[in-house]
Amino acid sequence: MTDFDPPTPYLRDLVARALDEDLGLLGDITSIACIDDAAKSDGAFVARDAGVVAGTAAAAEVYRQVDGAVVLAWDLADGDRCAAGDTIGRLHGATRSVLAGERVALNLLSHCSGIASLTRSCVDAVGPEVRLRDTRKTLPGLRPLQRAAVRAGGGYNHRDSLSDAVLIKDNHLAGASIADAVARARAQWPGRIVEVECDALDQVRAARDAGVDVVMLDNMRPAQVGDAVEVVAGACLVEVSGGVTLDSLPAYARARPDFISLGAFTHSAVALDIGLDVA
Amino acid sequence: MTDFDPPTPYLRDLVARALDEDLGLLGDITSIACIDDAAKSDGAFVARDAGVVAGTAAAAEVYRQVDGAVVLAWDLADGDRCAAGDTIGRLHGATRSVLAGERVALNLLSHCSGIASLTRSCVDAVGPEVRLRDTRKTLPGLRPLQRAAVRAGGGYNHRDSLSDAVLIKDNHLAGASIADAVARARAQWPGRIVEVECDALDQVRAARDAGVDVVMLDNMRPAQVGDAVEVVAGACLVEVSGGVTLDSLPAYARARPDFISLGAFTHSAVALDIGLDVA
Amino acid sequence: MTDFDPPTPYLRDLVARALDEDLGLLGDITSIACIDDAAKSDGAFVARDAGVVAGTAAAAEVYRQVDGAVVLAWDLADGDRCAAGDTIGRLHGATRSVLAGERVALNLLSHCSGIASLTRSCVDAVGPEVRLRDTRKTLPGLRPLQRAAVRAGGGYNHRDSLSDAVLIKDNHLAGASIADAVARARAQWPGRIVEVECDALDQVRAARDAGVDVVMLDNMRPAQVGDAVEVVAGACLVEVSGGVTLDSLPAYARARPDFISLGAFTHSAVALDIGLDVA
Amino acid sequence: MTDFDPPTPYLRDLVARALDEDLGLLGDITSIACIDDAAKSDGAFVARDAGVVAGTAAAAEVYRQVDGAVVLAWDLADGDRCAAGDTIGRLHGATRSVLAGERVALNLLSHCSGIASLTRSCVDAVGPEVRLRDTRKTLPGLRPLQRAAVRAGGGYNHRDSLSDAVLIKDNHLAGASIADAVARARAQWPGRIVEVECDALDQVRAARDAGVDVVMLDNMRPAQVGDAVEVVAGACLVEVSGGVTLDSLPAYARARPDFISLGAFTHSAVALDIGLDVA
Amino acid sequence: MTDFDPPTPYLRDLVARALDEDLGLLGDITSIACIDDAAKSDGAFVARDAGVVAGTAAAAEVYRQVDGAVVLAWDLADGDRCAAGDTIGRLHGATRSVLAGERVALNLLSHCSGIASLTRSCVDAVGPEVRLRDTRKTLPGLRPLQRAAVRAGGGYNHRDSLSDAVLIKDNHLAGASIADAVARARAQWPGRIVEVECDALDQVRAARDAGVDVVMLDNMRPAQVGDAVEVVAGACLVEVSGGVTLDSLPAYARARPDFISLGAFTHSAVALDIGLDVA
Amino acid sequence: MTDFDPPTPYLRDLVARALDEDLGLLGDITSIACIDDAAKSDGAFVARDAGVVAGTAAAAEVYRQVDGAVVLAWDLADGDRCAAGDTIGRLHGATRSVLAGERVALNLLSHCSGIASLTRSCVDAVGPEVRLRDTRKTLPGLRPLQRAAVRAGGGYNHRDSLSDAVLIKDNHLAGASIADAVARARAQWPGRIVEVECDALDQVRAARDAGVDVVMLDNMRPAQVGDAVEVVAGACLVEVSGGVTLDSLPAYARARPDFISLGAFTHSAVALDIGLDVA
Repeated sequence: MTDFDPPTPYLRDLVARALDEDLGLLGDITSIACIDDAAKSDGAFVARDAGVVAGTAAAAEVYRQVDGAVVLAWDLADGDRCAAGDTIGRLHGATRSVLAGERVALNLLSHCSGIASLTRSCVDAVGPEVRLRDTRKTLPGLRPLQRAAVRAGGGYNHRDSLSDAVLIKDNHLAGASIADAVARARAQWPGRIVEVECDALDQVRAARDAGVDVVMLDNMRPAQVGDAVEVVAGACLVEVSGGVTLDSLPAYARARPDFISLGAFTHSAVALDIGLDVA
Repeated sequence: MTDFDPPTPYLRDLVARALDEDLGLLGDITSIACIDDAAKSDGAFVARDAGVVAGTAAAAEVYRQVDGAVVLAWDLADGDRCAAGDTIGRLHGATRSVLAGERVALNLLSHCSGIASLTRSCVDAVGPEVRLRDTRKTLPGLRPLQRAAVRAGGGYNHRDSLSDAVLIKDNHLAGASIADAVARARAQWPGRIVEVECDALDQVRAARDAGVDVVMLDNMRPAQVGDAVEVVAGACLVEVSGGVTLDSLPAYARARPDFISLGAFTHSAVALDIGLDVA
Repeated sequence: MTDFDPPTPYLRDLVARALDEDLGLLGDITSIACIDDAAKSDGAFVARDAGVVAGTAAAAEVYRQVDGAVVLAWDLADGDRCAAGDTIGRLHGATRSVLAGERVALNLLSHCSGIASLTRSCVDAVGPEVRLRDTRKTLPGLRPLQRAAVRAGGGYNHRDSLSDAVLIKDNHLAGASIADAVARARAQWPGRIVEVECDALDQVRAARDAGVDVVMLDNMRPAQVGDAVEVVAGACLVEVSGGVTLDSLPAYARARPDFISLGAFTHSAVALDIGLDVA
Repeated sequence: MTDFDPPTPYLRDLVARALDEDLGLLGDITSIACIDDAAKSDGAFVARDAGVVAGTAAAAEVYRQVDGAVVLAWDLADGDRCAAGDTIGRLHGATRSVLAGERVALNLLSHCSGIASLTRSCVDAVGPEVRLRDTRKTLPGLRPLQRAAVRAGGGYNHRDSLSDAVLIKDNHLAGASIADAVARARAQWPGRIVEVECDALDQVRAARDAGVDVVMLDNMRPAQVGDAVEVVAGACLVEVSGGVTLDSLPAYARARPDFISLGAFTHSAVALDIGLDVA
Repeated sequence: MTDFDPPTPYLRDLVARALDEDLGLLGDITSIACIDDAAKSDGAFVARDAGVVAGTAAAAEVYRQVDGAVVLAWDLADGDRCAAGDTIGRLHGATRSVLAGERVALNLLSHCSGIASLTRSCVDAVGPEVRLRDTRKTLPGLRPLQRAAVRAGGGYNHRDSLSDAVLIKDNHLAGASIADAVARARAQWPGRIVEVECDALDQVRAARDAGVDVVMLDNMRPAQVGDAVEVVAGACLVEVSGGVTLDSLPAYARARPDFISLGAFTHSAVALDIGLDVA
Repeated sequence: MTDFDPPTPYLRDLVARALDEDLGLLGDITSIACIDDAAKSDGAFVARDAGVVAGTAAAAEVYRQVDGAVVLAWDLADGDRCAAGDTIGRLHGATRSVLAGERVALNLLSHCSGIASLTRSCVDAVGPEVRLRDTRKTLPGLRPLQRAAVRAGGGYNHRDSLSDAVLIKDNHLAGASIADAVARARAQWPGRIVEVECDALDQVRAARDAGVDVVMLDNMRPAQVGDAVEVVAGACLVEVSGGVTLDSLPAYARARPDFISLGAFTHSAVALDIGLDVA
């Protein structure tokens, strides 16, 4: 059960752009000059470090576009843990094609697996009762791919875009009360989730009373989060956002919000080292 | 003197895609519901951490596309150092427009500035006599933007794509001698740079004798690099690639190669924390 | 408070394609030949029939693209009712530009207003306690625009695409129990809405017990719908889908489901007759 | 003999966009979670109502894009009449793929067949001596597809875009005589058809004398059309446009114009009900 | 009276692609390094050779895209003759912008003017009674632009694409008679022009009797063309195609066909030398 | 060893656009009407004139897109000389598909081969010691394809775009000294080639002393070129540009610059006559 199967137009476009960027206008001029076009090779994607795998559908799409005759099989799926030295997948085909797709496939696998690995380590740190979510702090053009990697690491996704859900922040109030802003949003956008960002308990109370779906606690300390959870008392969901580090994550989790959201999953994950061994 | 001025079609497309992703099909539904379309605001991009600024042209393009009437002025330029609390740029315009572009502009600025900051700290660590270069280990669709950020941090760029230069690796030899491979590449692609990856001194000698432009030393220890530099003796340029960490960077630099290339600049840089203060 | 303000990349692309189609490769060759390029005109969008207005943002985008100097002001907004003869909006600018955008603007306004008018008449027929929703039976490329028109008519929107929510139908069960299918979906797609299509009461019970978010009653008669609503007893939401006509709508509404969804809003709405009077 | 065979880039793009819209960023998440990726199914497109089939090439393109391994065969071709219950086409392939393309294929088939059915009923009502044409009142992005459906129903096509032919209306005259306007158009656009819209007999005479190719009678009653046909006396073609309803169509036809054009074919056709039976 | 006014989506895309190609990913790096961004310049497009001007709308679109603040005025219009030294147009704006658009604007102007100049010299050679047409032998992506240039030179356009008109050649007959092929085409594509390629007089007679709109004489000598014109005797139009050179053009013209079509207009025109003088 | 193998995204897009342009919205309506969809044909690309072949990868891509089942084999490769009557390649497949791709494939082959043929004749005229280069005077959208054709003819390529290398001309100096301009460019764009255009010997000296990579001699006579080569004395490369004709080429070559660049290769090459024989 893999995301992007069959590949969506989004994934196809993303991969086409990445190949365009890496192949340039002429293609791999080194291979064109040096490698016989009848030569065949085997390749193996091998983890050089331990982590969680993600991005296999994107890597598969790379080879589908480069050369439909390359055969690719996966030993590990998105969400699986890998140790250093583990083979993630194997491919066979024209050497030129294997090499033409190598860098783009690795760039995709390494980035996605880096996100999944970071997410998984955070999810393990907080335990099953608090859900970790990503944010809109993603890299341009990569949001859906990055979000699939967050899920592969055990995380959850926040709203996809500004069109999906209402999230009222300070700047949206502009003097209006939370109750008024929520009412306007409900009237204009029936059927959408409404969330309100709060930085003090009286705002939390106002949001709860206005019947929001989620209260977002912005830059509160863990103790304040505990108070807010008590104030809400299950009337809506509670999300912690801002100022959470890997160190403070357990303390926040102990305050029992429904969600903690972390921008670092998508803006600061370190790539997982993965290589392609060609024989 | 800023890159991307006037904005190239590449930059416009990148920003359009990023906005598409973040605005979704309908736009910022929260602002549409809550903010009067005549309201105006001032905003300031403020660094929350110290680093090197990059990505200003991309952030400017965001607001050009969202609403051409937003006025944007920069206090700092690409390549400038910033301290925590420094204002990087200021904007004024319709509140709806200021908010509609906020997240995409910040995502671009933070990512580029993160790359520039990491690059600058490495460049400072090796001193002026060794040039640091990026690699093709970039994120899909972001290569030109990431490379401009590397330059803003004092780094240099490697070949843009597989079409730009010949780089002969083990897999390209397939039994042929380095001399033969270089000859075939020179014949097929007149006027291009030819570089050969070597992992032993005899390969370095062979490459030098074949008249390559650059020898790339793959995963050699600093002492081996010193030997190779001696072997080459200025007959061509020498590049170190693979296995270099921030810790080992100075040791490699002391061996005096012409270039050291680092994938981490573009695949593992941590975002610089930058926010938008709206008033 | 209008959707698509400022215009999203989706709306811009849709309008660009529509203009491309209507202007052809050369543009309005009749105007180029016959109309002085300095001539100016006033125009008025006038309803020739009664209904509900929608699509104003799209029509505005048409003129923004054709000629940014055309001035356009709206007398009526999306969701407003109009009588035959009412002026919906007024424009002023170069005659060539007014005419170049005329047909595309009218095609967009008429189609959207046709949808809003049909939706409104249905919404009025069922009263405020049952929500009417659209479906995925939309015209290729027009879904977001059509859905905004449904909202303008007082309707609600179903899932935007197959990626947004889980909707388990007969074909997805393939021998598995509803409980198993729901469990697999919850595990694979945490945080998404899960809906199950049912055509008998025991399926409704199974879905309710599996903890779904919505039960969809497929092609049931109004009396069966009443039974299902009783079975569910508020444990989840109930949606009626399939086989509902304008005639049978009130009978279904009396059974008090939460939603009734109607494909006709988007696949069979008749255009509202709107013209452009030029002076 | 089918239009769009092999599929043109236009058709491919239209279908790609429609799939993008319906699959979203991740694809059919319900099938990914619930259906084994090795499962196979048979499907049949079945008419639920009587009408005329159109859009088969578009539906075929849907499955070509979703999964090239799906096999699709048509029992009926564009232009064939179908009764309720008739099988239009059959397909076999991976269940996930069959379902992933279902809605888009049906949306295309139903819309096109609705247009063809309406056109055919009008063509049958006027008999073979008057040709019925569509107009530029089409839906954004769908014009070529809708026009193929009009032909499948026995209708004819008007100019494709503003670039194709000169059509001089009141707004183009702006004080000039018809003779002058026609002369300017002939000079500027040699080799193009020139048509003039007339709402009175003296305009018809002027257009005839100016040597136009077609006279378009705008919003005239049937008796006036008869007078105009007499005035023209075969010197050019005569087209009736505007104000024609299904009821008044025969009366207009009896006046023997060469063409009657009807916007309703493309802006107000009701979808033909077609379903996909999966086994 | 200029084509492409206002600029169509086709023209915008063509120019965007050309700029993308010439500016590359970063833009004019020389100007970014060397020219103050506040500097202003005047420029003049000057013919270095005599000819006929074309492509002004495309050159204008270049500057509209590079920098909307550049002011551009034309001394000459499409279709005007120019002598060496004549100023075609003048521009004023930021020096960086003037230079960023220079090469693309000149490439467009020179190519179009080269086509217009060649066409004009041929049109002058045959006199007003025979129309010269272009063919489908155009350069990829440039057809509409090239055809506008042919018109600027006094020529006429053939069918735009394979979708526009029926042109039956030997390969389409495949054993069928001309009468049968024409009948099938008329039935399948009502309302389209039907042309038949003939290489002998009996084929000309058959085509005439089948009621075609145009007979195309393929690779016939001038005397044979004269015979064919006599055979047709005005029953349809006669076109000469293939084997016509600038030398033989007058001889063909004297045989009085309706059209002579020449591929050289669009596949082999030499650029008109035009430069940009900057001050 | 062919460029564009496997085909790059650039080549795919170029061919897709060319097919879009030639097939139009419906495809080859003549073949749809007249040719049985089961009919098969053989075809041969045959040179009607002597020259040098180029563009085979583009022609192959045409048929890959039109119909993947068409089999295509090449008798000659890019860079091979052909005589009139020589078969360049052969294809077999559905007759409809063979004809649908014919014109676009021929347009590409003829244009590229025309460029290669002209380049080769110039290369032969100057001998092996001077390299001939193309310029940025290319046709919009065709630059990479044209440049591959130049290489097939034995020529070399200049910078691909304004982003690739620094080329300082008069307009960039604006009062600054060459030394200053070069210094600014080196600082802003580390690692790029810097070339300076000179029209007098003192500029040549200044550029040489500033340490540029290439001196471009603009519109100098052959004798002046000889002087400049002496002044430079190997300190950098010397390029001749502007005012070179086929007649004056040998005289320039005798002055021994490193490069002579010629715009005519790409803006004024005459198509090589190539046809498709179908049986």
